[in-house]
Amino acid sequence: MPTAFPKDSVGLVTPQTAHFADPLALVCGRSLADYQLVYETYGTLNATASNAVLICHALSGHHHAAGYHSLDERKPGWWDSCIGPGKPIDTDKFFVVSLNNLGGCNGSTGPASLNPATGKVFGADFPVLTVEDWVHSQARLADLLGIRQWAAVVGGSLGGMQALQWAISYPERIRHCLCIASAPKLSAQNIAFNEVARQAILTDPEFHGGHFQEQGVIPKRGLMLARMVGHITYLSDDAMGEKFGRGLKSEKLNYDFHSVEFQVESYLRYQGEEFSGRFDANTYLLMTKALDYFDPAAAHGDDLATTLAGVKADFCVMSFTTDWRFSPARSREIVDALLAAKKNVSYLEIDAPQGHDAFLIPIPRYLQAFGGYMKRIEV
Amino acid sequence: MPTAFPKDSVGLVTPQTAHFADPLALVCGRSLADYQLVYETYGTLNATASNAVLICHALSGHHHAAGYHSLDERKPGWWDSCIGPGKPIDTDKFFVVSLNNLGGCNGSTGPASLNPATGKVFGADFPVLTVEDWVHSQARLADLLGIRQWAAVVGGSLGGMQALQWAISYPERIRHCLCIASAPKLSAQNIAFNEVARQAILTDPEFHGGHFQEQGVIPKRGLMLARMVGHITYLSDDAMGEKFGRGLKSEKLNYDFHSVEFQVESYLRYQGEEFSGRFDANTYLLMTKALDYFDPAAAHGDDLATTLAGVKADFCVMSFTTDWRFSPARSREIVDALLAAKKNVSYLEIDAPQGHDAFLIPIPRYLQAFGGYMKRIEV
Repeated sequence: MPTAFPKDSVGLVTPQTAHFADPLALVCGRSLADYQLVYETYGTLNATASNAVLICHALSGHHHAAGYHSLDERKPGWWDSCIGPGKPIDTDKFFVVSLNNLGGCNGSTGPASLNPATGKVFGADFPVLTVEDWVHSQARLADLLGIRQWAAVVGGSLGGMQALQWAISYPERIRHCLCIASAPKLSAQNIAFNEVARQAILTDPEFHGGHFQEQGVIPKRGLMLARMVGHITYLSDDAMGEKFGRGLKSEKLNYDFHSVEFQVESYLRYQGEEFSGRFDANTYLLMTKALDYFDPAAAHGDDLATTLAGVKADFCVMSFTTDWRFSPARSREIVDALLAAKKNVSYLEIDAPQGHDAFLIPIPRYLQAFGGYMKRIEV
Repeated sequence: MPTAFPKDSVGLVTPQTAHFADPLALVCGRSLADYQLVYETYGTLNATASNAVLICHALSGHHHAAGYHSLDERKPGWWDSCIGPGKPIDTDKFFVVSLNNLGGCNGSTGPASLNPATGKVFGADFPVLTVEDWVHSQARLADLLGIRQWAAVVGGSLGGMQALQWAISYPERIRHCLCIASAPKLSAQNIAFNEVARQAILTDPEFHGGHFQEQGVIPKRGLMLARMVGHITYLSDDAMGEKFGRGLKSEKLNYDFHSVEFQVESYLRYQGEEFSGRFDANTYLLMTKALDYFDPAAAHGDDLATTLAGVKADFCVMSFTTDWRFSPARSREIVDALLAAKKNVSYLEIDAPQGHDAFLIPIPRYLQAFGGYMKRIEV
């Protein structure tokens, strides 16, 4: 067991829970009577509350973005390489807030929570959420923490969509928007992959129409398949080749369908298995639907520049060359619309072989550019 | 009901069945005591049997490549745009043979056939086959038909791998090898997609370890998911965008997980449903494994040029710009190895937006190049 945390770590962190008793009206037309959000903070809020940064998580993410929950936690938070003293999101300067989104399965109210109206687990009765709903619920958390305006809202992938929505929904409450490896809406192919993942879960006999908890089971097979499909899209073809090639698990082929013969099969099965044991199937459905529905330009005649006309934040948009889930071309759509709307935007396309996952990886040029932008933010 | 076939069609065709009573030794170490292959022929074999062309099918293909089985058949064979009088594979010149591969589910002996040893359906007891086994079984069909040497062996995707294997296994028996939208082996990403498809089938409770026929069920959900994943890889992102965009099935969003909201969801579910009703799950597993195992250079120190040293056929290699299943780079690996081995090879990369499926589509430049090459073949 280690006796100390790394010097550039935020160290020991303790999740906190915020309760909200005011009903939250949702885009779907329903509302949540009350709910809770679990979150962590790193650094210190300054006297004028001008140094707050919000971290928005991606599909399977959560509030634990940096530091350690205990001395024997094996891995730090999921974005520890980017958040800490001297790191791109420097906790010596910023007060960082990271939450588990509403509908999540890591402590915030979600489908696996008890429905106060029935006394049973929500399951399939939990309302379908959108990125706008998340941003709305995050604004309430900001109110609670005394943060009138974020110095920056930062997110990768689905998190980048939330950052973008913040700039659109609350132009007065965000000074800088960092939108990383993201897109202004999904492509048909993106939706198609989500649909396969959803069908895998929905058709699992142990899904029970979303009320599997009542049956004492989980749709493990469906979640496993959903995660396997997802993982393929997170890595570039080259990264997979580099990592696994056609490497075999053993010297000889088995000529059956059950053996794990290639290393990539072993990797995917492990990822799928592990995920199916810790993630809620209804949350997974909800997250993929939020992705599918995200399309802020739809309400403005599909014109993203018009959509962004009221935005006041400065933007930093970053993409990665081998990301085929949200390719650089998707980031350039955001950049082009911002330019057309005469907004300030910095754009960097980072040469990285890792595919979509690159945004989670401490690539020197990425950290440098990320940190460079954050350093120039006045607090 | 139509009263005549199109003029450039091979017209009415009738599948034939060839029985083989000699045991076929397989790469996996097992053998098939006897088996049958179903096939079709188009055109007329000339006196010296020098004008025969073999068509090798891809993953879910079969023997019905051209013409019609009846006047009221709605669609002709799967490669009708390329096979017929005056078409690239001109049946006024060539005698074309198209078969359902061993292990298939369209009439040739496969997992859904009766196992003569037990009197029950083979199911999971059917041996795992390789591309080499197919080529071996196709050579026996050639013997039966009195074809000592093919004027050409032609295939797209997995079919192109069989054509390539023909040139390697039987250099004296093939004069031209047409390898379209193919690859010399799968990448880790290709294997990963196959593994997701297999896991979808294997984990379907109605798969019953591959003996679902005995239970009177089929693993419909697993097959559906496998097909959905496959379909995503057959189309380019752009082609999907062009075909479906983010088009909605109805004006408003439903905010649930079950509705088909986007057109691409509807397309995928239809494709999956349709496929699961007509294709055998064990055959699907077998075909994906044959793809994974294909790696002719493995026996030659991973050196494809050395592997191709003994090849005598001239090659025509074609690829399509937006094919991301087997990208042009994969075809160029074959071309480069052939050049290094000092073989004759023509290579064309066709600018086409349709992705991998392009090889099935009558793209003018493709048909022209394909037909141009076939015209120069002496018979």
